[in-house]
Amino acid sequence: MKVKTFNDLFVDMIKDLYSAETQLTKALPKMAKKATTPELRKGFEQHLQETIQQRERLERVAEILEVSPKGKKCAAMEGLVEEAEEMISEFKEPQVLDAALIAAAQKVEHYEIASYGTVITFAKMLENSEEIVNLLKETIQEEKDTDAKLTEVAEGIVNEKAAHVSA
Amino acid sequence: MKVKTFNDLFVDMIKDLYSAETQLTKALPKMAKKATTPELRKGFEQHLQETIQQRERLERVAEILEVSPKGKKCAAMEGLVEEAEEMISEFKEPQVLDAALIAAAQKVEHYEIASYGTVITFAKMLENSEEIVNLLKETIQEEKDTDAKLTEVAEGIVNEKAAHVSA
Repeated sequence: MKVKTFNDLFVDMIKDLYSAETQLTKALPKMAKKATTPELRKGFEQHLQETIQQRERLERVAEILEVSPKGKKCAAMEGLVEEAEEMISEFKEPQVLDAALIAAAQKVEHYEIASYGTVITFAKMLENSEEIVNLLKETIQEEKDTDAKLTEVAEGIVNEKAAHVSA
Repeated sequence: MKVKTFNDLFVDMIKDLYSAETQLTKALPKMAKKATTPELRKGFEQHLQETIQQRERLERVAEILEVSPKGKKCAAMEGLVEEAEEMISEFKEPQVLDAALIAAAQKVEHYEIASYGTVITFAKMLENSEEIVNLLKETIQEEKDTDAKLTEVAEGIVNEKAAHVSA
């Protein structure tokens, strides 16, 4: 068996992220549809557009690396999406569901922040990787901004209303 | 069907974290065993001890809430642990595996940081929740410290060595 190198690990993580973003492009429309708070719905819709671009950036990274971005299934994102779906089926009260959707989305963003953080660190160690590093940095900044916006919507609007729903 | 409230969502997330920490107490010993870099192995062993305490804190939170911490399976942590196991089976070269283990562990820490971040925000909105907030804050600080330590080991020791492994 061929020894798998650091470069292979990097490619592996890019494929993992590509699978994660692809899964998200399918989950976000459902989350947007279920969101009641207009700011939250708009946020999910906007992040869907970003996610589509982030997926394209990974395609460009794969092209530079001369590999396919496909071929891996991100098990963690499968679990995260499963959790979001559980939330949707369990919490029917709109404001509480919005709070649950934000919680699920923030877990997703943190997964991506951790993963892009690692691949950026790895990419910096590879030769001729400036374009790759820049593409990945654009994305991680969007993920951090999305996480911050979700906190804003949670703390500024949703949680207060959700906490006043009585059984 | 009873309407599920914000309080139910909070309990749900505590149970989810309890399942996550429980799964981690089983995964961390395997990760420590596979780690080659002494600082990393020690880090995993130390975090195992913290994870055991974090699990106990969640038991205390559940006791205050007068619920059982059990009864939920954290699907996201299942996926994260599955990813770590995939890494172990795919990357055999010790330094590259160490880099992979750090990547997997940082995803775990970020999952927990996101999740504890949310439950702390929720807990602050509940009545008489001071002890709960303090318990959860102790844990989130440990998770953030662990994440920072992993970055230190990656950037200071592991990645440089891993990048020089040739195929």
